[in-house]
Amino acid sequence: MTRARSFWAWGWADRFPDEDARRALAANMSALFGREPELLPLPSIDAVVLPPPRIAPELACCTSDREARILHTHGKGYPDIVRAFRLDFTRAPDVVALPANEAEVEAVLAWCTARNVAAIPYGGGTSVVGGVECDVGAAYAGTCVIDLAAMNRVLEVDHMSRAARIQAGAFGPQIEEQLASHGLTLRHFPQSFEHSTLGGWIATRAGGHFATLYTHIDDLVESVRMVTGAGVMQTRRLPASGAGPCPERLVLGSEGALGIITEAWMRVQARPKWRASASVHFEHFAQAVECARKIAQSGLYPANCRVLDAREALLNRVSFDGTSVLVVAFESADHPLEAWMSRALAIASDAHGTCPKGPRFSSDGGKIANADAAASWRQAFLDAPYLQSALISMGVVVDTFETACTWDRFDALYAEIAAAATDAMTRACGVPGSLSCRVTHVYPDGPAPYFTFVAPGRGGGADVIEQWLTIKRAVSDAISRANGTITHHHAVGRLHRPWYEGEASPLFLRAFEAVKSALDPPGIMNPGVLLPPPGSGAAAGGPGRAT
Amino acid sequence: MTRARSFWAWGWADRFPDEDARRALAANMSALFGREPELLPLPSIDAVVLPPPRIAPELACCTSDREARILHTHGKGYPDIVRAFRLDFTRAPDVVALPANEAEVEAVLAWCTARNVAAIPYGGGTSVVGGVECDVGAAYAGTCVIDLAAMNRVLEVDHMSRAARIQAGAFGPQIEEQLASHGLTLRHFPQSFEHSTLGGWIATRAGGHFATLYTHIDDLVESVRMVTGAGVMQTRRLPASGAGPCPERLVLGSEGALGIITEAWMRVQARPKWRASASVHFEHFAQAVECARKIAQSGLYPANCRVLDAREALLNRVSFDGTSVLVVAFESADHPLEAWMSRALAIASDAHGTCPKGPRFSSDGGKIANADAAASWRQAFLDAPYLQSALISMGVVVDTFETACTWDRFDALYAEIAAAATDAMTRACGVPGSLSCRVTHVYPDGPAPYFTFVAPGRGGGADVIEQWLTIKRAVSDAISRANGTITHHHAVGRLHRPWYEGEASPLFLRAFEAVKSALDPPGIMNPGVLLPPPGSGAAAGGPGRAT
Repeated sequence: MTRARSFWAWGWADRFPDEDARRALAANMSALFGREPELLPLPSIDAVVLPPPRIAPELACCTSDREARILHTHGKGYPDIVRAFRLDFTRAPDVVALPANEAEVEAVLAWCTARNVAAIPYGGGTSVVGGVECDVGAAYAGTCVIDLAAMNRVLEVDHMSRAARIQAGAFGPQIEEQLASHGLTLRHFPQSFEHSTLGGWIATRAGGHFATLYTHIDDLVESVRMVTGAGVMQTRRLPASGAGPCPERLVLGSEGALGIITEAWMRVQARPKWRASASVHFEHFAQAVECARKIAQSGLYPANCRVLDAREALLNRVSFDGTSVLVVAFESADHPLEAWMSRALAIASDAHGTCPKGPRFSSDGGKIANADAAASWRQAFLDAPYLQSALISMGVVVDTFETACTWDRFDALYAEIAAAATDAMTRACGVPGSLSCRVTHVYPDGPAPYFTFVAPGRGGGADVIEQWLTIKRAVSDAISRANGTITHHHAVGRLHRPWYEGEASPLFLRAFEAVKSALDPPGIMNPGVLLPPPGSGAAAGGPGRAT
Repeated sequence: MTRARSFWAWGWADRFPDEDARRALAANMSALFGREPELLPLPSIDAVVLPPPRIAPELACCTSDREARILHTHGKGYPDIVRAFRLDFTRAPDVVALPANEAEVEAVLAWCTARNVAAIPYGGGTSVVGGVECDVGAAYAGTCVIDLAAMNRVLEVDHMSRAARIQAGAFGPQIEEQLASHGLTLRHFPQSFEHSTLGGWIATRAGGHFATLYTHIDDLVESVRMVTGAGVMQTRRLPASGAGPCPERLVLGSEGALGIITEAWMRVQARPKWRASASVHFEHFAQAVECARKIAQSGLYPANCRVLDAREALLNRVSFDGTSVLVVAFESADHPLEAWMSRALAIASDAHGTCPKGPRFSSDGGKIANADAAASWRQAFLDAPYLQSALISMGVVVDTFETACTWDRFDALYAEIAAAATDAMTRACGVPGSLSCRVTHVYPDGPAPYFTFVAPGRGGGADVIEQWLTIKRAVSDAISRANGTITHHHAVGRLHRPWYEGEASPLFLRAFEAVKSALDPPGIMNPGVLLPPPGSGAAAGGPGRAT
């Protein structure tokens, strides 16, 4: 029995908050903003009207089935969810391909080439940046979304080298389940873990579980296999080579613009046995950030080193007294962690942090008791996207965005973003709204802050996408001005492209265009991500002109 | 007063062994191989005959001065040193450029373009793979070697983010000296440290000090600046971005084929205060390797985790009883290391290792006392290239090569290489010669083994390059057969290109060719490294056909 994903909201259909929960949420919003949001009626899939497909699915693994098209129309960005909620499926793909093996992937691309159909790799469809959107311009005869969900196996395990060959269509839980039988784990747990796939993670340089060292999926890829319009690219299984530029790094972040990743050898790990976790409270956010910097530069390499500002700490039920919280955690399959934690807490204490509950340790492989802030945070973390969908169902403008910058620029970046967000929310929604910040990953040379904004939509929610876009543009412009990156791990897609064009070296973009021409000669691969789609004229231009 | 580098041998002219040392070395060789090598007369720079330059140096920063041309003719690979020793300078560059700033670098490339001159970035000239060789085919009107030695400053330091902006022409000691005044260090110590430059390290993905985590210069590059024939490519200072494929990774390993790296923001570190070091002895090499694997997979991240086989241990004066040795060391600017070392030694003990002298600790930032094997090894490590030059001066065939593979393939790779080397030395030199192995870097998924071979040349040394080539081809073929990489950190250059072509995905090579066409439209940048030079017909073909 297959558990159903919502056709419009985040995740599992059965996890969407019920009416009581929606009412409670509306009351919260009212308390926060003094404006009671209206509970809009939930949409029914039966009411969806699809445009007729412009081209027929001619391969056995392809379909133009109504439900398949509906389920593959939208990603999970704010405008995607709003459009789906409003039953706007004008951008439905003409064809959905469900290849069961690599030969079928090749056949699909050959068919797309022959028919001049844009090929859009779907991953798990959780893109929040328009990465799976069939918005490809007018140069194509149709669109074909390619979903590798049938290719979900761990094919081979090399215990000695701690590596596993995994098909790109495998979802997070499928990977962990199959690896668990070998006593192994990939330990890549993005927020989308249940709903996103290995291929999607690699294509978008997903950020995962670890706050230090192995922060992106990049660090876990040993070799990769990608079907392109010019043939199959297979890199070697090597722990590290110095022979020419790293080929895997060209595939990582290519977002489907070069080809379709079909499988990869991934670096896996023994399942952790020892864990240590502590929550350190700080009077000021800046102190917590400073402490995170010291730990990031200490060589202790915690698995978790997350800073929550006071509002995040409150929203995530971690702290209720206005303090900012640093959650620091270590894990190991090899050794007890007292020395590591003890030093981290000494650094925290020097940085004016207090750890009222003390550190918690576990040595039996189990999670640490629920009393700990890390557990509260974990649950809230997984609930957050459901909450966003529920808020969207009452016309609220709510989204997250993230960046990374060097430590010396963080204060200025934070100030720039806070000012821009508050101003834009006021302009768009008539109230300053709420902005909160956490730091999700830390590097010796800088943090990756993650922001959430919430404001009640105005005008009954009719133009919330425009309101959202006003805020999204403002904060993205602020990131650019402050020399942050437009994305640490959400990818570029179509949404972030204007800022990516402002951020990337023009020569690198020219080089990447040349690579695309070489590997995707017909130019059918995910047109419009990273580079402008054909027929759109010159590059769409710099920051501030996003659409 | 400038200390002079040898015009033919490795390194400083004043460090070349004197006649007594040469005689002692010859006696050692005689004892080892039963054949007394002849001490050939050392060459004099005055006897060098240069071909007349084919083109005049037309820019102020360029010269065709005799000494400049001689000093920029050869790299430091075995055939380079043999040719220079024999006063073979037929491949001297026509022009040597010594730009003092980036504008001059651009002017030099513009001049090369206008005159159809091949532009060869020199770094410190220590390439052992023909990376700086003016062997570019017949398609050019001349050759210009570009030496950035005048661009050697640390331009900017960001203490808070632990990063420094450094000019590409800076040699290792110049970098460390300038950073030391800030209490910082880059901690990138390749064997060539004194004689190689930041730009060379980045262009060739040099391997450095750390045996785990930050093994290649790749990991220390925050952003990079490169002058190309299509303009200047500057990447952003970001600790980590997920926006598109990583641009720095396209520059890393480009070996001068795309442009000239002029500067980079590098991740630097506080100077270590605590150190811990131990030498663990094993009866069998395989046990030491197994122990290194366990430590590599433990999450302890030692700074050093080097395995020396019995012969390496003997040659490096680390062990004299036939045991293999694992040198494991930790360092930290933040914390004492007892817990780390204690766990590493427990792993070693489980793997049947013994640590007769126990671990040594230091907490004052100083090196650990000389009694330790690490110190013996360090000195022998720095002496080794001088020793090679001295052996070449008596007709000995001696070289090193390195690779990396996954752990599951290491035993087979080692056996394949040992058999091939012994067979080839016997065929080429008439004796089985000596092959030794150490493991220089370890990853969770595999080791990077490093081999040294020595055999007395036969026939009075007249055709030692052919003898060397027989061995080089045999071991490189063996690496390819065993699924190793042709290089973990020595780069590809012109020497390794046939095996690189066999190893790299053809589609990746096509993509890289496309990048080169985009960034180097006139095709003047270091022709023949990574890709075949223009006019050479199709790709030169796979393994076994190296020249």
